[in-house]
Amino acid sequence: MKIWQKDTDSKKEVEQFTIGRDPEFDLVLAPFDVLGSMAHAHMLAKIGLISEDENHILQKGLKEIYEEIQSGKFTIAEGVEDVHSQVEFLLTERYGEVGKKLHSGRSRNDQVLVDLKLFYRAAIEELVEETQQLFQLLIQLAEKHKSDLMPGYTHTQLAMPSSFGLWFGSFAEGLAEDMALLRTAFELSNKNPLGSAAGYGSSFPLDRKMTTELLGFADLHYNVINAQNSRGKTERTLSFALAGLAATLNRLATDVCLFMNQHFGFISFPDELTTGSSIMPHKKNPDVFELIRAKTNQIQGIPVKVSFLLTNMSTGYHRDLQLLKEEIFPGIASLRDCLKMTVFMLESIQIKQNILQDRFFKHLFSVEVVNDLVLQGVPFRDAYKKVGLAIEADDFNPDQSQINHTHEGSIGNLCLEEIRGQMKNQVKSFDFEKIKKSLDRLIKK
Amino acid sequence: MKIWQKDTDSKKEVEQFTIGRDPEFDLVLAPFDVLGSMAHAHMLAKIGLISEDENHILQKGLKEIYEEIQSGKFTIAEGVEDVHSQVEFLLTERYGEVGKKLHSGRSRNDQVLVDLKLFYRAAIEELVEETQQLFQLLIQLAEKHKSDLMPGYTHTQLAMPSSFGLWFGSFAEGLAEDMALLRTAFELSNKNPLGSAAGYGSSFPLDRKMTTELLGFADLHYNVINAQNSRGKTERTLSFALAGLAATLNRLATDVCLFMNQHFGFISFPDELTTGSSIMPHKKNPDVFELIRAKTNQIQGIPVKVSFLLTNMSTGYHRDLQLLKEEIFPGIASLRDCLKMTVFMLESIQIKQNILQDRFFKHLFSVEVVNDLVLQGVPFRDAYKKVGLAIEADDFNPDQSQINHTHEGSIGNLCLEEIRGQMKNQVKSFDFEKIKKSLDRLIKK
Amino acid sequence: MKIWQKDTDSKKEVEQFTIGRDPEFDLVLAPFDVLGSMAHAHMLAKIGLISEDENHILQKGLKEIYEEIQSGKFTIAEGVEDVHSQVEFLLTERYGEVGKKLHSGRSRNDQVLVDLKLFYRAAIEELVEETQQLFQLLIQLAEKHKSDLMPGYTHTQLAMPSSFGLWFGSFAEGLAEDMALLRTAFELSNKNPLGSAAGYGSSFPLDRKMTTELLGFADLHYNVINAQNSRGKTERTLSFALAGLAATLNRLATDVCLFMNQHFGFISFPDELTTGSSIMPHKKNPDVFELIRAKTNQIQGIPVKVSFLLTNMSTGYHRDLQLLKEEIFPGIASLRDCLKMTVFMLESIQIKQNILQDRFFKHLFSVEVVNDLVLQGVPFRDAYKKVGLAIEADDFNPDQSQINHTHEGSIGNLCLEEIRGQMKNQVKSFDFEKIKKSLDRLIKK
Amino acid sequence: MKIWQKDTDSKKEVEQFTIGRDPEFDLVLAPFDVLGSMAHAHMLAKIGLISEDENHILQKGLKEIYEEIQSGKFTIAEGVEDVHSQVEFLLTERYGEVGKKLHSGRSRNDQVLVDLKLFYRAAIEELVEETQQLFQLLIQLAEKHKSDLMPGYTHTQLAMPSSFGLWFGSFAEGLAEDMALLRTAFELSNKNPLGSAAGYGSSFPLDRKMTTELLGFADLHYNVINAQNSRGKTERTLSFALAGLAATLNRLATDVCLFMNQHFGFISFPDELTTGSSIMPHKKNPDVFELIRAKTNQIQGIPVKVSFLLTNMSTGYHRDLQLLKEEIFPGIASLRDCLKMTVFMLESIQIKQNILQDRFFKHLFSVEVVNDLVLQGVPFRDAYKKVGLAIEADDFNPDQSQINHTHEGSIGNLCLEEIRGQMKNQVKSFDFEKIKKSLDRLIKK
Repeated sequence: MKIWQKDTDSKKEVEQFTIGRDPEFDLVLAPFDVLGSMAHAHMLAKIGLISEDENHILQKGLKEIYEEIQSGKFTIAEGVEDVHSQVEFLLTERYGEVGKKLHSGRSRNDQVLVDLKLFYRAAIEELVEETQQLFQLLIQLAEKHKSDLMPGYTHTQLAMPSSFGLWFGSFAEGLAEDMALLRTAFELSNKNPLGSAAGYGSSFPLDRKMTTELLGFADLHYNVINAQNSRGKTERTLSFALAGLAATLNRLATDVCLFMNQHFGFISFPDELTTGSSIMPHKKNPDVFELIRAKTNQIQGIPVKVSFLLTNMSTGYHRDLQLLKEEIFPGIASLRDCLKMTVFMLESIQIKQNILQDRFFKHLFSVEVVNDLVLQGVPFRDAYKKVGLAIEADDFNPDQSQINHTHEGSIGNLCLEEIRGQMKNQVKSFDFEKIKKSLDRLIKK
Repeated sequence: MKIWQKDTDSKKEVEQFTIGRDPEFDLVLAPFDVLGSMAHAHMLAKIGLISEDENHILQKGLKEIYEEIQSGKFTIAEGVEDVHSQVEFLLTERYGEVGKKLHSGRSRNDQVLVDLKLFYRAAIEELVEETQQLFQLLIQLAEKHKSDLMPGYTHTQLAMPSSFGLWFGSFAEGLAEDMALLRTAFELSNKNPLGSAAGYGSSFPLDRKMTTELLGFADLHYNVINAQNSRGKTERTLSFALAGLAATLNRLATDVCLFMNQHFGFISFPDELTTGSSIMPHKKNPDVFELIRAKTNQIQGIPVKVSFLLTNMSTGYHRDLQLLKEEIFPGIASLRDCLKMTVFMLESIQIKQNILQDRFFKHLFSVEVVNDLVLQGVPFRDAYKKVGLAIEADDFNPDQSQINHTHEGSIGNLCLEEIRGQMKNQVKSFDFEKIKKSLDRLIKK
Repeated sequence: MKIWQKDTDSKKEVEQFTIGRDPEFDLVLAPFDVLGSMAHAHMLAKIGLISEDENHILQKGLKEIYEEIQSGKFTIAEGVEDVHSQVEFLLTERYGEVGKKLHSGRSRNDQVLVDLKLFYRAAIEELVEETQQLFQLLIQLAEKHKSDLMPGYTHTQLAMPSSFGLWFGSFAEGLAEDMALLRTAFELSNKNPLGSAAGYGSSFPLDRKMTTELLGFADLHYNVINAQNSRGKTERTLSFALAGLAATLNRLATDVCLFMNQHFGFISFPDELTTGSSIMPHKKNPDVFELIRAKTNQIQGIPVKVSFLLTNMSTGYHRDLQLLKEEIFPGIASLRDCLKMTVFMLESIQIKQNILQDRFFKHLFSVEVVNDLVLQGVPFRDAYKKVGLAIEADDFNPDQSQINHTHEGSIGNLCLEEIRGQMKNQVKSFDFEKIKKSLDRLIKK
Repeated sequence: MKIWQKDTDSKKEVEQFTIGRDPEFDLVLAPFDVLGSMAHAHMLAKIGLISEDENHILQKGLKEIYEEIQSGKFTIAEGVEDVHSQVEFLLTERYGEVGKKLHSGRSRNDQVLVDLKLFYRAAIEELVEETQQLFQLLIQLAEKHKSDLMPGYTHTQLAMPSSFGLWFGSFAEGLAEDMALLRTAFELSNKNPLGSAAGYGSSFPLDRKMTTELLGFADLHYNVINAQNSRGKTERTLSFALAGLAATLNRLATDVCLFMNQHFGFISFPDELTTGSSIMPHKKNPDVFELIRAKTNQIQGIPVKVSFLLTNMSTGYHRDLQLLKEEIFPGIASLRDCLKMTVFMLESIQIKQNILQDRFFKHLFSVEVVNDLVLQGVPFRDAYKKVGLAIEADDFNPDQSQINHTHEGSIGNLCLEEIRGQMKNQVKSFDFEKIKKSLDRLIKK
């Protein structure tokens, strides 16, 4: 049943093909659709397109539906086209003609745009929360293992001493930096498109600033064409943010798989977190991290698929945009899974002790020894030569138990407090609290 | 329940994360898994690793399961890890210890590889079949509309006369050419990896040529590492083939959306195949073709996602490969949907008549007139000048009702027979019949 | 000549293959390399690794080289490996042994990282400047054409009235929003990696905060591994920003090519800015905008190529990172070209007047008329029905000369001042002035 | 100077922007442009559009230019637009008006299409030749090292015994399989588009089969729109072929970088083929293979960039297509470099002997021992248990010096002859010889 259907019946084949995975995604959007309608109804009352009484009924009805959604009782009835129609259908069924007035002054286009923006805001908040959990764990691990040395590699070749503190800390700071792309996606999601109708505005005297405030948006997309163009741009920007965060997890997972290899043997996990083999009894495979590596690769591919849907397309809504959800919604879910599983696994990580005390690693210390001599006053060239000759004569026996790095961000000075500060600043800049308050106010209004 | 499980229990979280969408995909693979096992059991009997009696029982059990799959009765029981385990579990439950002997001389790795190869072969056959249906329809439409002129564009600017016959025919020949990539993917799928075990072969004296023949493979991947590496390479190649075919459909859909625009207005569809608008009563939107355009864009993005999963990865199986299914399986299904919907829609396409007789299009004929003069003996330069002056003086009045092109592939000589021949040759080169016979023989053996 | 060369000679083939396009890119980096060295030398003097006198000589020498670069006299001598070596070589040639002391406490890795960060900062400043020029022009055009109506499309179908003011304005606001991704890339570029050495820090007591301040960086990458990991992350983020901006230009170019099509015929350009055809005298092709469309597509492909270079790679420098320059440097140049050419072309754009007064477009006004009736007190349903019947009876004759939209961002209320404010805020947040002052101070110090 | 220029002058900015890198690419196309013109002129003479005498003069002039190109004397004069214009200019300058007749019955569009097809054919031949050289070397190395055991990994974990023979052989067979995509690209390049003019054919009675035969094409693109659409499709297909081959080299390079890591230490290269470090005297970095890994990643990104240029584009030439050259031409050159450098490096590869005899690797042999017991008649379950208990009791001491694998493609039976046969069949299917003969005949005619 299509509310706006023409007399002709769309053939079933067309229906099935065009509806795609929307029923599944629409359930995700349902609470946000109701919130958008609440704000829209208040605005319609203010500009006189509906009466205060009508608004009162609509708010009551919408609140009921909102609670049904929250308690898991809401479904989209067989044959109803989408969540928007289902909400309008319920309102009309329960409260009569007033339910049909809700659609005045808006189009499906700006309605779904609002739903998406509100959903993305909420999804980003969850991503930020889960990233913080991983961040905190990494900071703890960096602190705990700050004295556990390990080799540092360049060109996948043994290079210089590193430490597990440094290694864990690098991902913590990386995650803090990744928040910047998420915030950019968030800012774009936090702009109100409502009132842009089908992308060319309306002849009704809509009060777009009012809905902006009611829904807790930081600002509005002013130009109505640009508001419509934000469909796609928001998803592309969000896909960049997902990809950026995924790339950090990808590197962590790649390292873990390498360091679990028996030649390295630096880290391990309890047996129940690794996987065996059907024909090789000695195997302890890092399947979880291999899948994190793979999933973060899939996520890094999302920007391409999003961009393919958008490029070379003229201004104005195209049905193509519907499929953006197929890329973004599962991408968000997958990244959240990866964040949670990384936390889950790292909580049990086991670090090999005293790795660098093995003579196998003594060449790692050559730069240390040269620098020490320089700091003791030996000219660099002489120091370098002396160490070089010792190595050649196989008479190079550095102290491999500790190293003395003191500058900011080095092994001996991890600056975890500063990195914690970076993350705190990033998170603060989202101002989720303000949004929460606005939405609470709207629901209770 | 994992058949090869170590004493420790994998935590639930790990299970859930690592299993992903495999239960869904495993049902698709089920019949192929059974076929692979039939061939493997015959081979084990031949080389003496199981007795002829044991083989007889296994074949009986496998045939039963195969029929259960065909009749939709097969499911993977709660807690069973995958299709391979379920089949082995059923055999053992029904026929005792002999069920466990089936896994001798193979690994999960080559077992799933065989399943995938057999599935891809079958999927490609269906794609070829559906492409042919679209091809036949395009040839019919080209024949039917060979005299219906339309404008030809370059730079999206009016250029020269074209025809609907030419336009439909171009996609027919395009599809015939797309078969070449599909065949390349098919050839790679039509090579036997069985016997490569975990990628390093086996100390059992496996007869790989025997399973190659039983399963109707054209050849085998000889080198066992290369057989394992074909996981990923096969999917990448197949993703290229899907993308190539998708690109042809994308162009068709793009043209349709443009030509349905009211400024063009060249083609239309019955009302029930187009979509209206919630606020604009006059709209007839080409949603189906917009979604075909969008879906074929998604498909063109699959090679990137596949390549991300594979690049910078060392030799040997990695769990990452599991996720290839998440890209390829839905990609195949989506492309098949697009092929079928394109047929469904084009069956009802309506063509505007006599488009070019409108004076609006007269400049399209300038090259025609110049060439006619040249063929009548007027030097090209004079002809060109004469026509140019007539256009400038607004005294250019060509005959716009027909044009006389005669060379191969031109408006007057569409060469549909030759194009039909190209498709026929392409399809013939797959030799699906030979495979069908081999599998029938295997099942009945 | 490699300064750090081992006794063995790299074979010529290896040299040529590994050097790639670096000589070309190194000239771009030259001024930034010198700035980085100035800051590093001051820091070395402060921590006592070189004397004040030595620092004085180095600063003098570096200033000379900086001026040579500015005046175009600097080249990398035949056989010298890279810009870093050339600078060191010149210093040593002119001022003796002190030139060699400059490399203490740093590695090629953090040296080139600083060069790249400084270059990206400068390149982003230029991109922002050029984007602003396009922005200003779009705002002017929106203002100028605010009363010129045109059709608005959805699904590439005629939908509702729009205006050129709205259309130009949409790209202006779009560009303002695109600045956010550029700023994210800028923030990542504006962090100091110096002191991270080869990615594992140094045993020298480097003062990283000092070089941070001297080079005008807003902050530092604390963790030294993370500093090294910022190679790649910075480029990926910048590639996202380039792609985002490119997508906006791509849509503009796509619209232009469509609206120049003769069926639309809404906009045109002077003959000398379009291109003719070798065989069709009537053609006026939009080659410039086709190439902008194409180039912005190439730019949207850069993130993939960057990500391919980085994914599945373990922590630590890999030579692969060198090739990031091959993607990013030309990408920046190409986007700058596109911005400039868009300005160049739009300065001459010609808009068709009174488009919507043609009866062809009357259905566009159906929603207007319905809404007008509603605002006059007619119930929506009655209004909708009345208009629908009029359309059916071919008795629908709306006023097509103007429309009355008043809400924020609509045709009658473009909110150009607010959009200008958005851009101003974005640009201000970069704080280029502070950087300029720091670098001026460093050069004059 | 544009031969077909309208009276107006294109502004310099437009010229510079639109010409791009074409002068560079046009020199590559020059010989093929002349060949195409030779065939076209013969055909024009046959259908009577030029006289036999005129054809004689044109052939003479074209042959002169062809020889100038071969001897490196050909340039495109300052101010001449492209190679086509330069050739026409030279002919007219030297032989008068007849030079201008050459363009009858063709357009720039089909002319450049022919040039590209001929160039791709030649480039693919060179790629096949260079791939064969690498293939032969890999086969030799496999033969030489067939008894040198090494570990085989799954999940980057030690799994089972492998050998260098198996490892080298896997890439040989991989390359043979990669030829199939190249052949698909070749077949598409080996179809004649000449006579399709601007994509809508010609009213001249062109003999397209004649030019097909003269230029040694295997067939023609019949439908003229499809011929035009092959611009883009050919490049996309070729980009797939490049990407497929690149992926094989990428894996080889990834393995080499891993196996050169000191923890593995399986392979090494002479000092002069590796690279040192500016601060770490003990480093021997695998820069060449890191760059091969990186370049093959860039190449794997080419299909995306090509597809972005083509998607959502309507039928007919668009200027966007010009930029395909910017992706494909350097991609071909880069892949050829990678092939040559891989050969260059592998000629000097040094393999560590007796790797598996180290007790560190004994668990690799567990499956071997189990299987041996089974072959001696011990039931599998008992064998597996026995070995498992021995491992647990640390009493597992297998013979680590050799293994006995006999089936096709296993360590003991590399099937190099069969793999050689695969490559031979692939190469034979291109039939380069036939093309060479046709072109020789054309030049001498």
